[in-house]
Amino acid sequence: MVISLDDILKMEKQPRTNLINSLPGIRQANLIGTISEAGILNLAIFNSVMHIGAHPPYMGFIQRPVSVERGTYQNIKETGCFTINQVHQKIYKQAHQTSARYQISEFDATGLTPTFTNTIAAPYVEESHVKIGLKLVAEYPIAINGTILMVGEIQEIILDQNYLNENHIIQLNNTNAVGVNGLETYYAVSKLAELPYAKP
Amino acid sequence: MVISLDDILKMEKQPRTNLINSLPGIRQANLIGTISEAGILNLAIFNSVMHIGAHPPYMGFIQRPVSVERGTYQNIKETGCFTINQVHQKIYKQAHQTSARYQISEFDATGLTPTFTNTIAAPYVEESHVKIGLKLVAEYPIAINGTILMVGEIQEIILDQNYLNENHIIQLNNTNAVGVNGLETYYAVSKLAELPYAKP
Repeated sequence: MVISLDDILKMEKQPRTNLINSLPGIRQANLIGTISEAGILNLAIFNSVMHIGAHPPYMGFIQRPVSVERGTYQNIKETGCFTINQVHQKIYKQAHQTSARYQISEFDATGLTPTFTNTIAAPYVEESHVKIGLKLVAEYPIAINGTILMVGEIQEIILDQNYLNENHIIQLNNTNAVGVNGLETYYAVSKLAELPYAKP
Repeated sequence: MVISLDDILKMEKQPRTNLINSLPGIRQANLIGTISEAGILNLAIFNSVMHIGAHPPYMGFIQRPVSVERGTYQNIKETGCFTINQVHQKIYKQAHQTSARYQISEFDATGLTPTFTNTIAAPYVEESHVKIGLKLVAEYPIAINGTILMVGEIQEIILDQNYLNENHIIQLNNTNAVGVNGLETYYAVSKLAELPYAKP
């Protein structure tokens, strides 16, 4: 079937949100950890973490409009730091639960464990198998709808060496990475193939 | 182990590219279809397609620096249109092959089939199970490294109704969606759970 722009605009809010959010397909579930100037820890699930560049090493994510209170955004502005923590099969339900509106830290609410290094003023998720510490280097407002592309420079990567293959590629089968489509459907992943650099 | 920024900067190019590209985790493999003013069809695989907003319905992707010839970018600038086509298990090897530097159209080179509608001046991939037609609405230069966030407004979605559940969420088990991590490692996905809207 063909769903036109007109059809989309006429849909009710919830089915439209579900449909449009699911269009990009599978995305990694990641937890972003931050801390406020007052020392309150924040943890939030994001499906928009992306590669921006390898040299210098940059990663980004899409921040929703900050018209309502957004702990993650506010904390990054205060400290300049955030962590990205890969979600795996043993913690994805706790990771999802961070999206609830708690009055307390999401670490306390979900039972995930904060851990720190001397490099980054933000909490890592101890249980995560791939932890990345970043410093904010730029934010790009997406003027058409008020979202923001946040970009950080990687300061450190914490993972077990066994998760890397001989080419330094993380093996998601070994980390038990969990993907998410839209806002609520979670998927396991299983390796199909490594395809070599394509030539004509 | 801890890999510091200094370690990353000292790595050789290929392992660094592999490591940094694999950090965001699983991402949907999508094919972006375009046509030049001269009528030459282009097809290219991207792992950076993202959700930008549901109302109005926007999707984006990261365009690498256009200092060298970039067919996709040039064609979108010429026509204002592009298509996003979900990659599945029967076409992921052909999809990967579009990244080779061909002198002919990637459709001809890979055997994937172009198809058109009256709405979008760009080719869809006939074999894809989820086809999305978009018009360019904005491009945001990411000044720190020359990449560009391209944003399009969805004009139409073409898919079999059976791929949607009762809540209008695409079921990636049914579309046989294929994810990719970094530039070369492909993964199948299998549903773990649908988790309800989280409440404290």
